[in-house]
Amino acid sequence: MTGRSTIALITDFGLDDNYVGIIKGIIACINPEARIIDITHNVPPFNVDAARYLLETAWRDFPAGTIYLAIVDPGVGTRRKSIIVETDNYHFVGPDNGLFSFLERRSIRRIISVTNRQYFLSRVSATFHGRDIFAPTAAFLSLGVAPDQFGKEQADRYIRRPPFKRKSGRKLLGRTIYIDHFGNLVTSLRAEHLPRGRFLVYLGDKKVGRLRKTFGSVRPGRPVAYINSFGYLEIAISQDSAADFFKVDYGRPADILIAPD
Amino acid sequence: MTGRSTIALITDFGLDDNYVGIIKGIIACINPEARIIDITHNVPPFNVDAARYLLETAWRDFPAGTIYLAIVDPGVGTRRKSIIVETDNYHFVGPDNGLFSFLERRSIRRIISVTNRQYFLSRVSATFHGRDIFAPTAAFLSLGVAPDQFGKEQADRYIRRPPFKRKSGRKLLGRTIYIDHFGNLVTSLRAEHLPRGRFLVYLGDKKVGRLRKTFGSVRPGRPVAYINSFGYLEIAISQDSAADFFKVDYGRPADILIAPD
Amino acid sequence: MTGRSTIALITDFGLDDNYVGIIKGIIACINPEARIIDITHNVPPFNVDAARYLLETAWRDFPAGTIYLAIVDPGVGTRRKSIIVETDNYHFVGPDNGLFSFLERRSIRRIISVTNRQYFLSRVSATFHGRDIFAPTAAFLSLGVAPDQFGKEQADRYIRRPPFKRKSGRKLLGRTIYIDHFGNLVTSLRAEHLPRGRFLVYLGDKKVGRLRKTFGSVRPGRPVAYINSFGYLEIAISQDSAADFFKVDYGRPADILIAPD
Repeated sequence: MTGRSTIALITDFGLDDNYVGIIKGIIACINPEARIIDITHNVPPFNVDAARYLLETAWRDFPAGTIYLAIVDPGVGTRRKSIIVETDNYHFVGPDNGLFSFLERRSIRRIISVTNRQYFLSRVSATFHGRDIFAPTAAFLSLGVAPDQFGKEQADRYIRRPPFKRKSGRKLLGRTIYIDHFGNLVTSLRAEHLPRGRFLVYLGDKKVGRLRKTFGSVRPGRPVAYINSFGYLEIAISQDSAADFFKVDYGRPADILIAPD
Repeated sequence: MTGRSTIALITDFGLDDNYVGIIKGIIACINPEARIIDITHNVPPFNVDAARYLLETAWRDFPAGTIYLAIVDPGVGTRRKSIIVETDNYHFVGPDNGLFSFLERRSIRRIISVTNRQYFLSRVSATFHGRDIFAPTAAFLSLGVAPDQFGKEQADRYIRRPPFKRKSGRKLLGRTIYIDHFGNLVTSLRAEHLPRGRFLVYLGDKKVGRLRKTFGSVRPGRPVAYINSFGYLEIAISQDSAADFFKVDYGRPADILIAPD
Repeated sequence: MTGRSTIALITDFGLDDNYVGIIKGIIACINPEARIIDITHNVPPFNVDAARYLLETAWRDFPAGTIYLAIVDPGVGTRRKSIIVETDNYHFVGPDNGLFSFLERRSIRRIISVTNRQYFLSRVSATFHGRDIFAPTAAFLSLGVAPDQFGKEQADRYIRRPPFKRKSGRKLLGRTIYIDHFGNLVTSLRAEHLPRGRFLVYLGDKKVGRLRKTFGSVRPGRPVAYINSFGYLEIAISQDSAADFFKVDYGRPADILIAPD
């Protein structure tokens, strides 16, 4: 890794306050050569499932050597751990709350529990670990400090929180995990989970229909289920918002049912 | 052009999802030295007229050699073309749907129809050409790949969609094309289109008044028409939102009438 | 200062229009090596108090040599001055309206009134001084042009607008100055202003209670006062929006009262 490595940020800080700017200022102080790329800062507040989905579907498109700094941290101030997950080509930095559950076990080289205060800002606040712990950790990593300098290795143990999925006879159950800015509903079910024969997709007790190629396959205003460009089953209303149509939001996520036709 | 050239982005992807981050990751993979600048990602969804206005009024303020990557693409998945427009100092990359109509014919060196899959991501999805086609095209261009490597030249033929404007006797008709974040209404009429003598500006059937120097020329709460800092006729309510006042939005754009006083 | 210095931006331009992109394009034209970092562009429109708070609580986290470009400018087009404030390690560029009031007098080396049109864009508009004056000033500064090249020194005279605070017997009065994206209410009172003994915090005529360590100290839905990670007294509703709960917004800021228990 060199000074010119990339740090990719994903947070629920929003873009109204100065939190994201501060994180970038801290990184620039420690490693002036780091390139910083925003994945998004508008993760729904405290929503670890949505953040995991947004990171899972983006990380492969970044250069080898990228350090992902993920801060969606409902447990800040509690005893939750801070971790570095190292894979063959990347590092992931963030709270240990399931954000990195998409990584395959065999791709993980080691997991470090971040505890070495030498790399933190001198005064650690109760509420802004992004500034005081996570940003400096990512920045020192990008300078080439070895992961084991930040704390002890904790083998393969870290919190896993895979997307919800349950088989029930010939039926398959899932959940909405993300609502994109068009109001499309991303479900927890991936293409490879779906049965082979003909089946119908239901959202709650409402029939969406068979699996289609794209949302262009149905008339405007009609519901449609398809595999999105990231491999997840998605439910949309052609040229409209499925979130509005089905009255789904993060406080009222919808159950998804796949049943034989 | 060198590795350190600038890529300026304008899209309707919004900043909630991870789409913009992915575009930047792809560019960083292909050309780690490219500088990426966001023009905006909050173009009203699928609104080619608004995108054209926002790009037209920004592109001259970027360094020579800049590559503009414009993705507002209601026709994604249909047979619309992808193009590179080359001028003396710049390249424009995007769907062929009128986004680049503001370029003068004589300033255009050549227009390339982008078809060479060698420069695309290996798997092209049905819905995310920004990631799979446009971002890699802009990134390889910034590395110095010649435009004609991406496909065939299509002479001067590309879609033109200039801002609406119509003469009717001594009257001039226009339309609202953009609503800025203050609620000011940008019209399709430029300063040089306006008649020389005294005239009145109407929005629908409501009188706005004579042309003024700035919105500071009238009392708070009063409507006012003036030439904005980009040379377009704009209608505002002093210290308030003209969009709210006149009940104008993208679904209900307003007609503009210029008539002798 | 070298070509690779940092320019940190804070404005109320929002991220919908192309204004921020244009500012960055202008800077890249003048100093292609400048690193640009966004503090935020979503300062509440024309709200100098909020901008001052957001800059005051961020600037120390940026590298030495950073140039802060702050554009929240309700007086654009009037006779308000444009200034450069130079401290030992930083420069601040913006309108002279109180944005930089947090700087201690003894830390200020000199204040320059920016008047030299040689460094402006050739045509200065009435309404977009960010593009025409401020961005080029910051960019030329980052190239190493000395501050006194931009205009005359005006000694220590510049507009000061410190956060509101008033003693009244054993009581202390303050005001809400910023509402963060969680709806937490930041007050104008800092930790060091608060009395030493036991006291109660009131918002308007409603009792918030005693000072606590964090918002985790009370049950969900209950109001709580604490010192935020920037040293300011803040009022929150645990796991909810205090702005909604207390019906406070920028048009209706709330008075804060600190009184003996």
